[in-house]
Amino acid sequence: MSSEENSPMKKINVTIWNEFKHERAEGAFGDLIRKYYPNGMHRTLAEKLAADDLNIRTVSLDEPEQGLPEEILNTTDVLLWWGHCAHAEVSEALVDKIQLRVLAGMGLIVLHSGHLSKIFRRMTGTACRLRWREVGEKERLWVVSPSHPIAKDIPETFVIPNHEMYGEPFDIPQDGKIIFMSWFEGGNVFRSGVTFERDNGKIFYFSPGHETFPVYHDPNVIRVISNAVRWAAPKRIFESRITPQPKSPEQIYTQNPLEKIDTSAIHK
Amino acid sequence: MSSEENSPMKKINVTIWNEFKHERAEGAFGDLIRKYYPNGMHRTLAEKLAADDLNIRTVSLDEPEQGLPEEILNTTDVLLWWGHCAHAEVSEALVDKIQLRVLAGMGLIVLHSGHLSKIFRRMTGTACRLRWREVGEKERLWVVSPSHPIAKDIPETFVIPNHEMYGEPFDIPQDGKIIFMSWFEGGNVFRSGVTFERDNGKIFYFSPGHETFPVYHDPNVIRVISNAVRWAAPKRIFESRITPQPKSPEQIYTQNPLEKIDTSAIHK
Amino acid sequence: MSSEENSPMKKINVTIWNEFKHERAEGAFGDLIRKYYPNGMHRTLAEKLAADDLNIRTVSLDEPEQGLPEEILNTTDVLLWWGHCAHAEVSEALVDKIQLRVLAGMGLIVLHSGHLSKIFRRMTGTACRLRWREVGEKERLWVVSPSHPIAKDIPETFVIPNHEMYGEPFDIPQDGKIIFMSWFEGGNVFRSGVTFERDNGKIFYFSPGHETFPVYHDPNVIRVISNAVRWAAPKRIFESRITPQPKSPEQIYTQNPLEKIDTSAIHK
Amino acid sequence: MSSEENSPMKKINVTIWNEFKHERAEGAFGDLIRKYYPNGMHRTLAEKLAADDLNIRTVSLDEPEQGLPEEILNTTDVLLWWGHCAHAEVSEALVDKIQLRVLAGMGLIVLHSGHLSKIFRRMTGTACRLRWREVGEKERLWVVSPSHPIAKDIPETFVIPNHEMYGEPFDIPQDGKIIFMSWFEGGNVFRSGVTFERDNGKIFYFSPGHETFPVYHDPNVIRVISNAVRWAAPKRIFESRITPQPKSPEQIYTQNPLEKIDTSAIHK
Repeated sequence: MSSEENSPMKKINVTIWNEFKHERAEGAFGDLIRKYYPNGMHRTLAEKLAADDLNIRTVSLDEPEQGLPEEILNTTDVLLWWGHCAHAEVSEALVDKIQLRVLAGMGLIVLHSGHLSKIFRRMTGTACRLRWREVGEKERLWVVSPSHPIAKDIPETFVIPNHEMYGEPFDIPQDGKIIFMSWFEGGNVFRSGVTFERDNGKIFYFSPGHETFPVYHDPNVIRVISNAVRWAAPKRIFESRITPQPKSPEQIYTQNPLEKIDTSAIHK
Repeated sequence: MSSEENSPMKKINVTIWNEFKHERAEGAFGDLIRKYYPNGMHRTLAEKLAADDLNIRTVSLDEPEQGLPEEILNTTDVLLWWGHCAHAEVSEALVDKIQLRVLAGMGLIVLHSGHLSKIFRRMTGTACRLRWREVGEKERLWVVSPSHPIAKDIPETFVIPNHEMYGEPFDIPQDGKIIFMSWFEGGNVFRSGVTFERDNGKIFYFSPGHETFPVYHDPNVIRVISNAVRWAAPKRIFESRITPQPKSPEQIYTQNPLEKIDTSAIHK
Repeated sequence: MSSEENSPMKKINVTIWNEFKHERAEGAFGDLIRKYYPNGMHRTLAEKLAADDLNIRTVSLDEPEQGLPEEILNTTDVLLWWGHCAHAEVSEALVDKIQLRVLAGMGLIVLHSGHLSKIFRRMTGTACRLRWREVGEKERLWVVSPSHPIAKDIPETFVIPNHEMYGEPFDIPQDGKIIFMSWFEGGNVFRSGVTFERDNGKIFYFSPGHETFPVYHDPNVIRVISNAVRWAAPKRIFESRITPQPKSPEQIYTQNPLEKIDTSAIHK
Repeated sequence: MSSEENSPMKKINVTIWNEFKHERAEGAFGDLIRKYYPNGMHRTLAEKLAADDLNIRTVSLDEPEQGLPEEILNTTDVLLWWGHCAHAEVSEALVDKIQLRVLAGMGLIVLHSGHLSKIFRRMTGTACRLRWREVGEKERLWVVSPSHPIAKDIPETFVIPNHEMYGEPFDIPQDGKIIFMSWFEGGNVFRSGVTFERDNGKIFYFSPGHETFPVYHDPNVIRVISNAVRWAAPKRIFESRITPQPKSPEQIYTQNPLEKIDTSAIHK
């Protein structure tokens, strides 16, 4: 991990991780998804987000080291995560590494069904369950925090014509700052765009992106994700801290009752 | 898991989990600790906390199933956790179960060096590091939230004459409500009593309790923990939620574009 | 202000403050409201909330001292507030007194159009604006925090058949804990039940209660308010704190450079 | 109020408001302060903060319109506030205007004894009391949020050799994000640097700056304030929102029971 300050000229290294299972499914279901995402959702996202200040890489679960060997993870400024049916396949060891990288400063953007991914649950500590229904109903999003950088240039309300319903109660920590809330035709509501900060890392959960609809072709959705990438990009990656401070900054007058006992064994 | 409402008459089932290693150490170090905690810190805590409205059990790491078989864990209303040198020995499978129980409503009180326990880091999602120094200096605690139930009958400030220093920066989520803050003679400050809520469970971290000092013989410290047990006790344990809601509560007018495609495979 | 601890036997003193203008309006509009609230909304609420553990008083704007002379305000444990067209008539001096009482521990429950009341804006510091529309559409509420005491015995979702729409963006501080969220037929969403804590006082904003519909005859709505009264009731009223602490609890070794200068004038 | 987006080239308009009473006091007390602040604390701050990207103005209480006529207030991006003995002299009308400007996006940096200023209490809704003592003791600050922009290039800990003590409990809302915490030689602790967001405006409270010590000559203190100015500067000033939304974005099927009744009178 490097601790150099990002210079204004330095590009943001974005890695888009995709489970990449549904897009390769056989039969009518796979055909439907390939109509919108012929090379996988990660590659469509990469095309849509392409910009001069971003270095974008796409990786997926079946690649070596599940797509995130250290040379990729540890040069990533912002990680996007799309997963759904294969959450359980992601190794705990990889989740540990991603968590450490987020705590050190890497931004994490979790999309749609990633709410149940190991990495999102790891970062929140909660169950992240929600209500859901898949009948192609209309979703309407509302900007709740109009001055937040993620809402920049997003209209007060916009529609996804057909989407999977995600509804409350959504089990997330109470310090999630709400950027977007959603209305569903079938009667449900949802905190559809929520930010968290954990140690030095910024996290954004954004629920749009069901695989059977062309959601990542919607300009508002792409603009939100694009804003979030810039918002989540770290100014610095923080080295893992060394925590002991054996010498006190101020004079201690209290006599140490344990001066003559060796307790170093307990702090190995 | 039972979902019955706790009746006013029902006692609170408290389980005190202790790593129980230092108290059994050989030599001068172990002798010192046994002076204060002859039968282990868990048993001293049980004696000090004893009250008519509590059913207290004590368990430790070397017992079967690491002290928390399901018949104990799933009848526990509030779990106290003291661990230090053996965090790594606690199995991930047990941490998974404790986390689920907390999310369902069980209270969790994490003491002192438990800040680095697997269960606390699991619940916070953060690194939980801090500055520390062990020279027997004086710690002074301040009540920051005087009307919080955990601060009931606690003086505005009180002293632990000799203690290990725990200092900021402390890596915890920003929604930790601060009940106590500490001053250390050597120049450090610390959020020494902090609450969190995660799904249906309440969590309290309280830093006093280094094993080489008689901290759990201090009446203020015991009163804080005693208050915290009542605060963290659940009104109910919530059954794990079933999340799909296939039938919408409101009429949907949008035509489902996928009506004729079987997508059930993706939601198994 | 008394600082005695409320005993378990002690009843909760509830004061319901109502602007009481619409219910006395002439013509068809007033007639409509009187159909549901013949003696004013405050009296209907008092009847619906009546219980053995509550002492309920009703007061209104046109009474002496705007309904809240000190002998009433300073014996109130929980204040309910309904106002709409006469926010500006409430005196700043009264708002000052109510704020002080809330900060000392009194619970405050702000209903419906009270979102723009002086006292709610005073407690939040924000503009408290929202989107609104009055076409009698359907509102559907969802429980977002099922284990919160205010949601006790409330179904996961329930309907108000005809209501005024209140929609996001709602300008409130980010530490509002969301208990309920609402869906409106016309496409809007809203944080319809939100709690705040300010110093020693608990605050609950609950949006149901438009005067032209029989909302306070709905058992779920009444149960929510009833739960909120118990949740907001203080354990104690805290005396106003005296803040100087001229004598330090710890020895100061630094020489005071101003020892010989009299600075007492600046702290009068 | 302008709603144009600030361009990257545009300078930040900073207004430093000072009560400017102590610096003009007669006698030894005034002489002492003038030694450090010969032209007032506002002018010293302006000199120390001067930078190419800032347009800095200094104003004070005894100037026309208490230093903040609309042409100044409404062209201010970030307002610094230092007040102490004359809080009560600031007019409510001015406080109203400043609050509106903050809610629209203006940054507000409240210094030292400004914790009891009308504008800070207005923005927080709380009493903002604290413990204090003036004996010239040592204060030591700690960075609690090392990756926050306000802590950029600030050492983990630094000292103010002589300062007034400000101690907990500090009555502020719980969503204050802690950037700095302080240790005082006399045994107290304090949340000395805290941020809030209220609607579109960012607020930073920073406690250093007692008038009888040369605190605003300390490079770390100046760097913190300098960082805070950039952090609090708005990207946009938001026009006051128009809140009704008479036409619903979605079709409403419920029949309006009040269709034939004119309720417009109640929404004037």
